[in-house]
Amino acid sequence: MIILVINAGSSSLKYQLYNMNGESVIANGRVERIGMDSSIVIHEPTGKQEVSLVREILDHNTAVKRVIDLLMHPEHGVLGSIDEIKAVGHRVVHGGEIFKQSTIVTDEVKLEIRKLFDLAPLHNPPALMGIAAVEANMGDVKQVVVFDTAFHQSMPQETFLYPIPMVLYRRHKIRRYGFHGTSHNYVSRKAAKVLNKPLESLKMVSCHIGNGASCTAILNGKSYDTSMGLTPLEGLMMGTRSGDLDPAIVPFTMNKEELTLNEVNSMLNKHSGMLAISGISSDMREITEAMQEGDKQAKLAFDMYTYRLRKYIGAYAAAMNGIDVLVFTAGVGENSVVLRKTVCDGLTFLGIELDEERNGERSKEARVISSAESRVTVMVVPTNEELLIARDTYTLVREQV
Amino acid sequence: MIILVINAGSSSLKYQLYNMNGESVIANGRVERIGMDSSIVIHEPTGKQEVSLVREILDHNTAVKRVIDLLMHPEHGVLGSIDEIKAVGHRVVHGGEIFKQSTIVTDEVKLEIRKLFDLAPLHNPPALMGIAAVEANMGDVKQVVVFDTAFHQSMPQETFLYPIPMVLYRRHKIRRYGFHGTSHNYVSRKAAKVLNKPLESLKMVSCHIGNGASCTAILNGKSYDTSMGLTPLEGLMMGTRSGDLDPAIVPFTMNKEELTLNEVNSMLNKHSGMLAISGISSDMREITEAMQEGDKQAKLAFDMYTYRLRKYIGAYAAAMNGIDVLVFTAGVGENSVVLRKTVCDGLTFLGIELDEERNGERSKEARVISSAESRVTVMVVPTNEELLIARDTYTLVREQV
Repeated sequence: MIILVINAGSSSLKYQLYNMNGESVIANGRVERIGMDSSIVIHEPTGKQEVSLVREILDHNTAVKRVIDLLMHPEHGVLGSIDEIKAVGHRVVHGGEIFKQSTIVTDEVKLEIRKLFDLAPLHNPPALMGIAAVEANMGDVKQVVVFDTAFHQSMPQETFLYPIPMVLYRRHKIRRYGFHGTSHNYVSRKAAKVLNKPLESLKMVSCHIGNGASCTAILNGKSYDTSMGLTPLEGLMMGTRSGDLDPAIVPFTMNKEELTLNEVNSMLNKHSGMLAISGISSDMREITEAMQEGDKQAKLAFDMYTYRLRKYIGAYAAAMNGIDVLVFTAGVGENSVVLRKTVCDGLTFLGIELDEERNGERSKEARVISSAESRVTVMVVPTNEELLIARDTYTLVREQV
Repeated sequence: MIILVINAGSSSLKYQLYNMNGESVIANGRVERIGMDSSIVIHEPTGKQEVSLVREILDHNTAVKRVIDLLMHPEHGVLGSIDEIKAVGHRVVHGGEIFKQSTIVTDEVKLEIRKLFDLAPLHNPPALMGIAAVEANMGDVKQVVVFDTAFHQSMPQETFLYPIPMVLYRRHKIRRYGFHGTSHNYVSRKAAKVLNKPLESLKMVSCHIGNGASCTAILNGKSYDTSMGLTPLEGLMMGTRSGDLDPAIVPFTMNKEELTLNEVNSMLNKHSGMLAISGISSDMREITEAMQEGDKQAKLAFDMYTYRLRKYIGAYAAAMNGIDVLVFTAGVGENSVVLRKTVCDGLTFLGIELDEERNGERSKEARVISSAESRVTVMVVPTNEELLIARDTYTLVREQV
C-alpha cells in the first residue's frame, strides 16, 4: 500500500511517500514560504535527481497540487496515477483530551480539531488546511490524523494537572498535554526492540532534543510524565524557548518592560533559550563550536542547557523510582557527542557509564552507547515520526478496507 | 549577651529574646493584626504564665514599644532594664545580590534594603519598619540583618540564571535568588553535626516543607541550587502557591479570564497549591485527615504534592551527581510521618530505606530516620531560624565590641 504523509505548518508543508511493503520511502520533499512571494518546492524522488523549484504558492491547496504534480511528473515523478496513493496520514500537533490515539478523518474529527484551535493557535489551523487540500485534490482518499499529544494521554491525573484553581481545568482545559508524542512513542518501541526486551518491563527516559526539546518518563510502555505542558514552552531549555521559569517572572517582566501578552509570549518562545544566553545562535552545533573556541557565553548556554536536562533525567528516575534505559533522539540528541557525554558524566550516581568509543561513533542506526557494566542502558535512537504516522495510517486504513 | 530577634511582617511582628550564654530563650511572642482594629499581643516569658492582650497598635513602632513594655513588665517581664539587650537581629527576606551574608545595620545597609523593595514588595518594607522602630525605641543598640536569600548567593551562574534575554538580568536583576536560606543553612549544619561528619563532605538535599516550601541542593557545604526563584512562587507545590507551571499558563489565563497582573499573581500565590486541588485547606494536617477519610480531591492534592517533591529530590541528586543525606524540616517536614514515608517509599532506587519506627517517633530532636542499611541518610532536623539569626547577630556584634 502506498501512503502519503503530510506535515503542514503555517507556511510550510513537508511530505513523504511510503511504500508500506517494506516501509520504503519512494519520495519526500517540502514546500516552503507558502503565502509569501517566491515559495520554494524541493522534491527528492528516491534514486533520482533532487528537484528544486521557485513558484507562487499562496495557500496549502496549491501546495498539495504542486506536490501531486511532482509525484506524477514524467521525469521527476514516482507514480503513474494519483489513485496509487491509498491513504494520507497527517501530523496534527494538538489532540486535546479527545484524541487518545490516531484516527480516520471524518467530519466530526475535523470539527474536534477545529475546537482545539484555541490550545494550538499556530499549529492546528494549518493541519486542517492540509486535510482540506487533500480532499480538494485527491477525491475521497482515506485520511488519518496522528497527534503529537496522543501518546501522553496515558499520564495520570497527578502528573497532568497543575496546582492551580480546578476551574481553569474544567473551564479551559488547562493541563499538561505534552508534545513530541509521536517521537517518544517511536523511539521507546524501537529501543525495546533493539534491546529485545518487552517495553512494558523497562523504566525509560526518552530525551527528544532538537530545536524544541522534551523529556518523557515512560513506565509500563506508556507516557507517565513529560516536560512540555499546556504548550511546548515548558520544561527543558531549548534553542529559542526558555523552558521552566518562576511563573512570577511573567507578570514581573510584563510590568517592568510594559509588554503585552503577545510580546511576553514571543519573548519566551522566540528570543529565549540558548539564543538568549549565548547571544550567538539557537543551534547546538554553533554553540559547541563557539564554546570550544573559548566563548564564555556559549559555554554558559551549554552548561545551563545540559544542567537542566540532567535534572529532568534525575526527576523522572525519581518519578518512576528507577531508570533502566535512557534514550537520546532528534537532531541534537542523535548528533551531539559532547552533549550526551556531558549529561551522562554527571549521572554516574545512577550507575550510568558511557562507552566513549560507542558514543563517538557516527551512525544512523539505533544503538547502545553505554558500557557493558552500565546499570542504565544508554541509547541513541534516530527518531522517525513520519514512519510512525505512515504505520498508524496503514493500520487504520487496512482495518477499514 | 542578651539578644532580641525580630521578624517583622506587613501586619505582624514576632520576637525572641535570647541569652547567648547557653543559647536559651528568655521570652518570645508576637504582635498580630498591626494596623487593624484590635491588634493582639502574645507574650511568653520562659517559666512564667503566657500573657495575651488586645490593644490598638497602628504601626511597627508601637508594636516594638509594647514588646519592650512587656519585656520589662514588673509581673510578666524578664529584664530589669532595656539596656540589658546588647543587640537586635532582624530577619530580612530579600538581600538581592548585595548581601551575601549577615551584616551590621548602617545607613548604607538601610538604603540597600530599600533598593530591594522592588524584588520583595511585601517583605522588605516591614523589615525596614522594624529596624526604624528599634532605633526609635532602643537608642543606639547594635542591629544586625540576616537575609533569607544570603545562603543561596553561593549558587553558580548556570543554576541562578534563567534562559531568558540577558538584558532582563542586567536591567532588572531577574535571576534565581531562593529563600528559606536561614533554615536550609541551619539544618544542614545541624545535620552534619548530628552525623559527626564535615558538612563539606556531604551531598545533601534539604526540604523545608511548611506552608511555603523549598528544596535545596547543598554541595561542599554551600547552596548549589534551590527550588524557589526570583520570588517564593517557583518550585514545589505549596499550601496556596502553585510552584512550577508552564510559564505560558500565565498569559493564557490572563487572556481567558481577563485578569490583571495583580490578579494573576494573587491567584498563583494565594489561591493555588493544595488549597486549589483539595478544595478543603492549605494545611497538610487537614489534607491528610480528609484523605484518610476517603476524600478523593484531598488524595489528589497529597499525591501531586509528594510527587513534585520526589521529583525535586531526584533532580537535585542528579544536579550533584549523588546524594548522601536527605533532610526534612519545617512544620510539615518535621511532623508529617505520612509525607516522609510516601516520598521516601518512591525513592528506593537511590538506596533510601526508611526505618518505619524511627519515622513514626514524635520528637523535637534532630534525628536519623533511615535504617542502618540505607545508602542515603534520611533525617528530621527541626529548624530554628531565630537561633541562627541570634548567632549571626552575636558573632557580628561581638567582633565589633
